Formats: sequence, structure tokens, C-alpha cells
Amino acid sequence: MTEKSPKIIYTLTDEAPALATCSLLPIVRTFTAAAEISVETSDISVAARVLAAFPENLTEEQRVTDTLAELGELTKDPSANIIKLPNISASIPQLKACIKELQSQGYDIPNFVDEPKTDEEKQIRERYGKLLGSAVNPVLRQGNSDRRAPPAVKAFARKFPHSMGAWSKASRSHADYMRKGDFYSSEKSTTMADDTDVRIEFVGKDGQVQVKKELHLEKGEVLDGMYMSAKALRDFFEETLNDCKDSGVMWSLHVKATMMKVSHPIVFGHAVTVYYKDLFEKHGELFKELGVNPNNGLNSVYENIKNLPHSKQEEIEEDIHACYAGRPEMAMVDSVKGITNLHIPSDVIVDASMPAMIRNSGQMWGQDGKSKDTKAVMPESTYARIYQEMINFCKTEGAFDPTTMGTVPNVGLMAMKAEEYGSHDKTFEVQADGIMRIVNAADGSVIMQHEVEKGDIWRACQTKDAAIRDWVKLAVTRSRQSDTPAIFWLDKERAHDAELRKKVELYLKDHDTEGLDIRINSYIPAIRRTMERLIRGQDTISVTGNVLRDYLTDLFPIMELGTSAKMLSVVPMLAGGGMYETGAGGSAPKHVQQVLQENHLRWDSLGEFLAIAVSLDELGMKENLPKARILGHALDRATETLLENNKSPSRRTGELDNRGSHFYLAMYWAQELAAQDEDPELKARFASLAKALTENQDKILAELSEVQGKPADIGGYYHPDAAKAVAVMCPSKTLNEILAEFR
Amino acid sequence: MTEKSPKIIYTLTDEAPALATCSLLPIVRTFTAAAEISVETSDISVAARVLAAFPENLTEEQRVTDTLAELGELTKDPSANIIKLPNISASIPQLKACIKELQSQGYDIPNFVDEPKTDEEKQIRERYGKLLGSAVNPVLRQGNSDRRAPPAVKAFARKFPHSMGAWSKASRSHADYMRKGDFYSSEKSTTMADDTDVRIEFVGKDGQVQVKKELHLEKGEVLDGMYMSAKALRDFFEETLNDCKDSGVMWSLHVKATMMKVSHPIVFGHAVTVYYKDLFEKHGELFKELGVNPNNGLNSVYENIKNLPHSKQEEIEEDIHACYAGRPEMAMVDSVKGITNLHIPSDVIVDASMPAMIRNSGQMWGQDGKSKDTKAVMPESTYARIYQEMINFCKTEGAFDPTTMGTVPNVGLMAMKAEEYGSHDKTFEVQADGIMRIVNAADGSVIMQHEVEKGDIWRACQTKDAAIRDWVKLAVTRSRQSDTPAIFWLDKERAHDAELRKKVELYLKDHDTEGLDIRINSYIPAIRRTMERLIRGQDTISVTGNVLRDYLTDLFPIMELGTSAKMLSVVPMLAGGGMYETGAGGSAPKHVQQVLQENHLRWDSLGEFLAIAVSLDELGMKENLPKARILGHALDRATETLLENNKSPSRRTGELDNRGSHFYLAMYWAQELAAQDEDPELKARFASLAKALTENQDKILAELSEVQGKPADIGGYYHPDAAKAVAVMCPSKTLNEILAEFR
Repeated sequence: MTEKSPKIIYTLTDEAPALATCSLLPIVRTFTAAAEISVETSDISVAARVLAAFPENLTEEQRVTDTLAELGELTKDPSANIIKLPNISASIPQLKACIKELQSQGYDIPNFVDEPKTDEEKQIRERYGKLLGSAVNPVLRQGNSDRRAPPAVKAFARKFPHSMGAWSKASRSHADYMRKGDFYSSEKSTTMADDTDVRIEFVGKDGQVQVKKELHLEKGEVLDGMYMSAKALRDFFEETLNDCKDSGVMWSLHVKATMMKVSHPIVFGHAVTVYYKDLFEKHGELFKELGVNPNNGLNSVYENIKNLPHSKQEEIEEDIHACYAGRPEMAMVDSVKGITNLHIPSDVIVDASMPAMIRNSGQMWGQDGKSKDTKAVMPESTYARIYQEMINFCKTEGAFDPTTMGTVPNVGLMAMKAEEYGSHDKTFEVQADGIMRIVNAADGSVIMQHEVEKGDIWRACQTKDAAIRDWVKLAVTRSRQSDTPAIFWLDKERAHDAELRKKVELYLKDHDTEGLDIRINSYIPAIRRTMERLIRGQDTISVTGNVLRDYLTDLFPIMELGTSAKMLSVVPMLAGGGMYETGAGGSAPKHVQQVLQENHLRWDSLGEFLAIAVSLDELGMKENLPKARILGHALDRATETLLENNKSPSRRTGELDNRGSHFYLAMYWAQELAAQDEDPELKARFASLAKALTENQDKILAELSEVQGKPADIGGYYHPDAAKAVAVMCPSKTLNEILAEFR
Repeated sequence: MTEKSPKIIYTLTDEAPALATCSLLPIVRTFTAAAEISVETSDISVAARVLAAFPENLTEEQRVTDTLAELGELTKDPSANIIKLPNISASIPQLKACIKELQSQGYDIPNFVDEPKTDEEKQIRERYGKLLGSAVNPVLRQGNSDRRAPPAVKAFARKFPHSMGAWSKASRSHADYMRKGDFYSSEKSTTMADDTDVRIEFVGKDGQVQVKKELHLEKGEVLDGMYMSAKALRDFFEETLNDCKDSGVMWSLHVKATMMKVSHPIVFGHAVTVYYKDLFEKHGELFKELGVNPNNGLNSVYENIKNLPHSKQEEIEEDIHACYAGRPEMAMVDSVKGITNLHIPSDVIVDASMPAMIRNSGQMWGQDGKSKDTKAVMPESTYARIYQEMINFCKTEGAFDPTTMGTVPNVGLMAMKAEEYGSHDKTFEVQADGIMRIVNAADGSVIMQHEVEKGDIWRACQTKDAAIRDWVKLAVTRSRQSDTPAIFWLDKERAHDAELRKKVELYLKDHDTEGLDIRINSYIPAIRRTMERLIRGQDTISVTGNVLRDYLTDLFPIMELGTSAKMLSVVPMLAGGGMYETGAGGSAPKHVQQVLQENHLRWDSLGEFLAIAVSLDELGMKENLPKARILGHALDRATETLLENNKSPSRRTGELDNRGSHFYLAMYWAQELAAQDEDPELKARFASLAKALTENQDKILAELSEVQGKPADIGGYYHPDAAKAVAVMCPSKTLNEILAEFR
């Protein structure tokens, strides 16, 4: 209980979600007011962040506070309750467009400078630099991750299951991975006994020492080092290709070149130069001159030969085609356009592509557009094994059945930048034969070392003790709150996990685990037990590091729900507060366009409904506000009804859109509150709202419908006019009046 | 410690093993005499048992005691130490031949009467009846079973691995089993609170009650009832056939019609009438008239149509062939002779056929004699799942590697006729729709019941509490003595196993399990963990009921050793004594023939060597005789040397035979004792023997060799002349003298 009045921070962001907020927020506030909860907004849009970066350029009226910084501060407040909507991770073109729009609105902010020269320019560039890319999540994600399928979504999937390809017991599909020479085989791990400064060094054959990186490690921090042998990797690729050629199954590569942005593009590049070995052997010198980079895919060849004489281009293209004769059929990203798996490294991302393959009867698409049994090549054995286990499971038990299967929530180790991927600034492609080592800076003693060869990929990871401690606590809490067994996925034979196992065993003792089923299992027993329970309709919490967080929160949701976008993502922050993230951004720019041209917003606020419900529930628990919990639970049930009655927005103008969907939500929510008996006051209060909304249903829907089909003006894209946006997003006079009257 | 002088009972049996004993026993006695252990013989040959059955027909000199009965008594003696060699399980023709031979030797015993009429004949028939079939094992197997690969054998397999077919990751082979309607799904189980008389009854739709069986159950006894739905079984077969037709993999049926001699022939029969559905539909009436029984395989059709007019036979044969067009390819037992999997029910026995398939890259043989991916159809899901798990494991990890893999000993629940198969006298093919139930005879209350349909197979099983208690003790003992983790394979979801789990958990508390790794796992986690350990060179004891005892002591040995014949089989008897069984009989009649014609005995006494070694070791432990243990350990090492030096008998006359192999064993054994330092007395004593044998090696081998190639006379087949047999089997004067001198 706190002296402050209970409040929820609702972030204002960009594009479609921001527009949807204009419509949704009045409804939400109408409901929360009944529990005396205020919903405050915090503008973290790109525009707001740009304005906050240049206060001295603005008039007093124009000036805004640095809300992101404030929110960052708020994450340290135990009572923080933040609903985070998708925002723009601005690219340079987006940032420039935003600046231009703000300038046109009379904000005297400087232009973006591509190549700053003067000190002033450099300072400007630096300020803008901080706004680029993923600038929000690092500030707000101050905790581990708690992801789950909300009951409403799960119920919907059970009733209206997505398609699921049947599995043949005779399927030839499988996952293939390195048995030696990969990160798993070489991983070393240690826990620091004290605060320690270390150096990552390369020692050449000549004894020359090259410092690659200096790090400060805390007492209790886990430090890993590992490498992947380029030679072993190339041999592995060759073997998988030959095996496919022999057995006749299709070949497919699955890496994560986006997230593991240093190591996996290199892995991808090796796949390209092995598959097209003859091509690269023949034209290697020329390609080097042209700047072909196989790490960017075969596409890099096509891109870089464009300016060659036509006959040379033709020769190379023929040589590319000649490669296919000696190689097995390759899975296609787009068989119509002839885009293979090796064209672009970001096209096939393991966490999405493997579930898609499993959902598609274990098959991928061949050159002829037909679905075929496939060898899914995933060099890293650390994680690839779970896919092979699931494939074997589907061969034995058949495809998962969304109508009966349980669910697999995840508790992911993420706080304090806990690493498992091998962070990018600690990943190196080895330039010569020698030794990669980590030494104690104080005395030069070697903490760990690996003998490496030129081309090998070496990397280190750090994981802070406090993050692990909180992760264990979160797992116990989730297991207790949902009365669900939890499994820590920690591989007995993996160095990093062995260190974590020790800590988990220790920290579990800090908690009351009486009556809970919490286990520590290696990955294979973990996924097997999870799947055995899953097909019996039982739920199991997976408690994992961040790689398996990423993989599993796609894998299981795609089986269970057909998509991972409907997952609820909570970040219970280390300081005690909570952040509730709503679904992925998706194609938001297209959404806005449709509003401007046809006044129809297709944005689905499902993620917001779910986040608000859990935000209310947790606020209620923390602040001892039973009314808040009742509101939250009623909202969940309302969302379930909404899904069941198919009142989600349509993509087509003229049909129900975001605003209409919000109306239904409000009506169902009020009806649920009127129907409950836990709180007579809420019951009575919302009975009248339910009545008003139900009785005026046709009228309101007509009002919402009639605005569609004409252009709409919101006075800006990055920085719309607030009043105009509200006018567009709240066009039903009847609804507005009912809500106003009720508040 | 006992007051009686320590002794080992060595059984005299029949055919080749009995001949080998003539040669081996003098050697063994020479060694055991050094530890003052006597080796006494006990004649349980068919001939001895026939003579013992008719004392009143014999002269005083001819009379023999009933040694089998005596041995049966001895099993109740805690100090019993019995080495049991393979004996003849006499069929009627064998018994008749034996009688004839004995009569010709002057024994006035009566003829066998096929159809006895007079009381006297009936009495004779009854006495002979007791000698037929498996008459010895039920008397002697008074305990649970302890089977393991002896170190010498394991070491040999690691050094000289048997062939092992590689597995393709893209293999389409798999096991398929019923998902509903089988014994597993319907099993019910209960533990008797008190001694209880029960009745197994069938209640018809008309309410008529038919008593099928009356049983007495002891307090603590586990009683199971279960049934397999004929309809579900037939649907299952049809589905598997269609699935094979669609996917193109070969179809193969794997049952255990020999051992489960009531239920599995019926299952087999359904497979026949489903596969050849069109045939049986068309000719059903005729087949019935002819006495065709599909439970005896398609062969029964061929046998019974022999006397039909030629044209009718041809029509039926054409109809048989027409069936193949609509069905998938079937695995062949003998592709040259056109014998399919469905010809004869005893041709494909799951415990041997599945390991053979797995060893053969997961493939079986097609009609064209080619090895192909196969669907192994095993209706009973209870056990079939372990094969699917191993198949998936091999697809993922590749074939097992005999040079590095660990070993899987077995502790099997077998004592007091512990049942799991559904014993034959409690298995019924249901004759009409109704209810099968087990009722308490005292008050008629229903203990369990199943609604069944005509054709369903219902069965019950009993397992005595004392047997389970001893089984748990044996598992702990084996785990302790071999310092090896043990897993009780008890399926959480299976009714019978759930009862056993409770008992095992309870009885484990009676033992000191400190420091031991003893777990109770469902079959899938059990076999998975076992296999994960196996490929890492680690050993795991499987502790199972008798079905999995049978299955696993073929499955793992065939992977590890290439055969299950080299397994050591110990029966630690409930009363405390031990029985040591030597390998399977095999083709013993052929062996004797070769002796008679060419004086070459190809019999391999490896099983005897291993059994004697463990018999000595356990005698030493129980009676506190360190010398006995040293003898046993030395014998194991000698056996290892013998295997490594390839001094096992050859099949070919002129090469080393059984006698020569025994000589090498004696020499190596003496050398090992001379080399050890634990017991100086034994060291000194055997140094001289080792010297004598080593120095006379060439001479002895020459003497043994020169008798070969000519006919030999042993004065009988079932009842040879003892002196003649010894003369034939101990032809080396030099060896005989050395042994005699030394004793």
C-alpha cells in the first residue's frame, strides 16, 4: 500500500497504436475511474523525444519534458505500472521525416546532419543519434521477462483453432546440427569470486598480444567464453549437403542473423560459400574486387555484378546455376521469384521459421512451389536439439492440437543485459591462428582460453548475479500465482548452464517452494516433459535464458495460437514495478495511410486489452485494491467475448474498425462488471453503463460506421494535432456522451 | 558362513552341453579343489527324469533319485549355488525317442501312450506329461532375474565390434501402435488388502453369469484386468496399412505369439484377416469349413486348401495375390521363398525382430530382397513406445557404437510367477458382448470390470507382494555391488505400474540407498536416459517387469554385443541361494551329430565359463571364501583373454573345438592365478599348473586335434554311456595326467 494514489502510466507512441489510444483511453479511464485509478500518459513518441532533445530551440509553450528519461527513472519506483505500446525504432530516413514535420509545425529544431563537421554539428548529430534505433526498450526493460498466452487468447484458439498441418509418421524431416566444433562444445564458464577487471586478448603464434576488449565484472557475475570452428562448420555444411543429396530431402538453413548480428552473418556466409563452392572458387578474386560479401547472401553476388559487362554477368549467372546440379534442392523463401534460403541472411530466422516448418507438417517449400520434407540445418547444437526433439515428437504423436493442448508461459533471464547470445561487442572473427583468452587485468592470470584458428568465431557473455537472483524469484512467483509447474531449462553438460544451475539451486532456497513443482532439467528432458504435458492439456512454465526465451515464445505460441503476436509480455522490474508490453508493431505505417485516405483504422488493440487487464490485476494485488483486480478480470472476460464474437477490427474499410472494436470491448466489459457479484458497488455502477451501451449499440455503430470512406485529417504523421486526432478517433457523439456522463 | 563344506551344484543336462561338461568339469574341479569347494553334479537330463518317474520298473542298480525334485528342494536352501545348463524342453517326438533309447539299453520303462484308455495308461501318460515341455525352469527359477553382459564379453565386443548398420537422419522407419482400445488404455489394477478368493466372470447381455476362472489372491498381491478391443485393433491395422500405402514405407507386424500364446495369435489373426480382407470376405465360409485358422497365419490357408480341386486352389491363390495390389509392400521373413511377415505367427518375434531391424539401419527386407524403411506395427502401446523412442534416438544420434557404448544390465520381476503378460490361463477371447469382471468370492462385490464386445481379448495378471519386495532388494543390491545407477521402469500413467510404484517407493525405504542413484521413471524417460548415458559410455541398470525384462535383455545386448546369447543370467533365489543360467540352447542336436560323425564338438562353453565365474564370486561373498572370489575373478580374466585370442570353438572339423577351447581356458585361468598377488598360496599352487599347461601346450593341442575327423561312439543320445562319453571328451592323455597330478 502506498500513500500515492494508484496510477497506471500509459505510453503514447507513434502511428497506429497512438491513434488507437485516442479512442481507447477515454474508455479505459471511464472504467478505471470507478476504482479511483488514474491513467496518466507518457509521450515517448519519436516526435516527443526529438522535441525533448532541443529545449533551447523551443518556446516555453513548445517545450516538453524528457518523458523517456522520466519513465526510466520511474522503473526504479516499486509502484511503477507502465503499459508500453509499440513505438518507432527510428531509422535515419524516419528521423529526418519527423524533423521535417516538426519544423513545418513551427518547431525550430536543427536539421539532421549526415556527416557532421563543426562541433555544433557533431553535438546535434550526437543528440539525434541517441534517438535512433531501439532507444526505448533498453531504458524501460529493467527486469526479467514474463511472457504468457492470456486466457482469453488461449480460449479463442481452443474454440477457433488455426490450421495445423498433419504429420506423417514416415516424415523424413529433421534438424541437423554440429556434433563438434560449435559453441556448445567449446563453451567455458566461470563465476567471478570478486569484482574483477578483465581483458579479452588474442595471442598470435608469434606471441604478440592484442587486447580486443576490456570489461569490468561484478562479484558473482557469470562469464562465458566459447568459439565455433570455421573448419568444422564448413565440414558440417558439406556433410549436410551430401546427406541431402543422398537421401533426397530438401536442404534448408536456419540461423538468426538479425539478432546475433555479428556471429550468424558469418555462419550464413560460410553456408553460401560452401553451397556455391565452385562459384566462389572460380570467381573468388573478382568477387573480392567487386566487394561481394557472402555474409550478405547470394544477393551480394547479384548486386555486385550488375556493373560488369553483360557477358561476364551471364557467365557468373550460369556458374551459379551450375552449382545447383551438384547440390540438393534448397528450400525457397519465395519460389515464384526464385529467392532461395541463401539469398538474404535475414529472410529465414530460426525462431519464426522452425515453428512455421513444424506447423507445415515439417515441410518447407521447394523450387516448384511444393511442400517437401526438409533437413533444417542449424549449426548451433545448443538450441537446435530442441527442434529435433519436437520434430521427433510430432512424428510419434502427430501434430499438436490447438483445441486441446496446454500452454507454455516463459520466464526469461533478461535483466541487466543478461547475455547468452554472445553479445556483439564481445564477438570476434579470429584473424589468425592463435589463442583467444580472458585474463585478469590485475595480475594477468588467465581466466579461460581457447586455441583458435583463422576464421573461427569467438565470443564471450556476461550475466549479472542480481539478474539471476531476480529471475529465480520471478519463476517461483509465476509458478505460485498460476499454480503451474515450472522447469528451469539448464543443460547439465553445458558450461554456462552448469554455473547457473549452482546459483538457481542456491537461490531457490530463498523462497517458499512448498507445494510447487519446480525442476531443473537439461533442454531435452525439459522440452520432452513440456510436450508430454502439453498434449495432455497441461501447462508448464519454461524458465530460460534469453535465447530460449526468444525461441520458445515463438515456438509454443505458434503451435498454440498460430502466432506469437498475441502473447502477453510483462517485465516485472527489478525495483518491483511492472511494465506491460503490448504486441509487436507490425505494419503500422500502412494503417495510418488507410486512416488518412479512408478513415478506417485496422489496428487491433488486442495487445492493449490484454496488457491493461494484467496491469489492473497486478496493481490490485500490489496496492491491495480488489476493485482493480475485478476490473482486470472482467476485462479479460470481455476480451474473450470480443474474440469469440469476432469483433476484432477488419482490414477492409466499411467494416468494423478499431473504434468499433473498442466500443464492443466497452460494452462487454461493462456487461461483465454488471454480471459479477464480488463487488456490489461496481456491479450497480456498471449495470447502468452496460444498459446505456447495449441500448445504444446500433446507434453508436452507425455513427462509427458513417465516417468511414472519406479522407481524415489528423494534422501530422509523427506529431499529429491532438484535438484533430481525438476528433477523428472519437466520432460517435452518442458514445462520447455516455462515457462523459458516466465518468 | 555355514557348517557344510562349500559346494556348487553343476547340472548335467542333454546333448551338446552335457558332452561339453564331460570335458569341462575335470578342469573346473581341479581349480575349485584349491579352494576346497566341491562341484557336485545333478542330472536333470530328460533321460534321468524319465528313469526317476518309473522307479518300480527298474532294478535297484538302475534306479535313480528324482534329482529335479531334489534341486527344487535345494532352491529353498539359502546356501544353494546351482549352475544350470540348457536342457531339452521335450516335445512328444523327443520324449518317445528317449524312451526307445532307454528301453534299448535295458530299462524296462513303459511306452508313451498318445491316447490313454485304461487307468494304467492314463497314469503313465500323466507321469510322462510332467516331463514334457518347459518342465525344469518352473521348478528352478525360484527368484527374480539378474541379467548382465559379463565384463569379458563386453570387453570383447568393444575390441571386436559386430556390424551395425548406419542410420540416416532422413529414415522413414518408425514404430506404430494403438492410441486407444489396447490393453494399456483399459488396464485396471488393484492391490489386495487381504487374502481373497476371487472369480473371473463374464456377464452376458441377458444377465447370465459365466464363471471363467477362480483364483486365490494373497494379501498385498497386485491384480490387473485389461482388454484389447477387436474393433479398435482391426481399425488400427487398416489405418497402418493405408498409411503405408500412402507414404510408401513397408509394413511389418511384430508380435510375440510364442510367449503370449493366447492373446498374440489372436492379434496376429486379425492382422491376417485385415490385410487379406478381400480374400477372407470372399472365401470366409469355405475357409471355415476347411478349418482355416488365421491365427496360424496365411500358411493355414495354404495348408488347408491343398485338397481342394486344382482350379479352386488356383482361384484362391489368385485372390491372395490380388490382395497385394491394394496393400502396401509387406516385410518378408524369407524373400527368396516368398514367406511374408504374415505367413507364420512365430516367425517375427518382437523382442528379437525389433533389435534386428534397428541394427539393420531401421530397415527390413522387401519382396525384392532389398532392405527398406519400415513401419513396425506393434499394437500394444505399452511396450511399442520404447522402440519408437529408440528409433527416434538413432535418427538423431546415429547408430549405437559397440566400441564405446555402455551396458544395460536388467533386474527382472519374475519370482513366484509374477505376471505381466497376462497369463495364459487368465486370457480370454470374449465370445459375446457383455461385461468381464473380477468379483470377490466372499461377498460377490465387483473388484473391477470392463464392458467388452465379442472378439475382444480380456486378460488378468497376478503379482505377489513378496516377489516385488525381493525385486526391489535385488535392484538395490545390484546397484550397490556394481556401483551403477538403476531405473525402475514403471509408467506413471499405467494402472499396474502405479500399484507397483507405491510398493517400490515403500520397499526402497527398507534398504540403505545412501549414495546410490535409484530412480522410478516412466518408460520413455527411462529408455531415453538410459540411451543418453549409453552413448556416453555409461551403464544403467534397468529394473523392469518380465515383459520388459524379455524385451530389454534382447534389445540392448543385441546393440552392445550383437547377440543376447552371451548375457549372464543369474537367478538370486528368494530363499537366498543363487542359480546361474548359461546361454540359450541353440542348435544342440546338430552339434551332437557332428561329434558322432566327425568327433568335433562346436559347442561354445562361454556361457558356462561366465556362470562358473559368477557362481564362484557369489559363493565367495556369501561363505566368506576369499579364495573362491579370486578363482572367479581370475576365470573372468581368463575368459577375456580367451575371447581376445579367439580361442572359442570353430564350427569346422579339424579346427579348435570345444575341448581345445577348454584347454586354453584352463591354461589362461592358471596363468591368471599365478599372476595375481592377493593369495600367495593360490599363486604358488597355480604357477606350477600354469607352467605344466603352457609347456605342454603344443602336445596337448596335438592330442586333442588328432582324434578329430573320425566317428565317435558315446553309447547313446539321450542317455550316453558315461565312460564312453568321458573317453571321447577327454582324449588328451597329457592334459588328463597334468590335471590328475595337480588335484
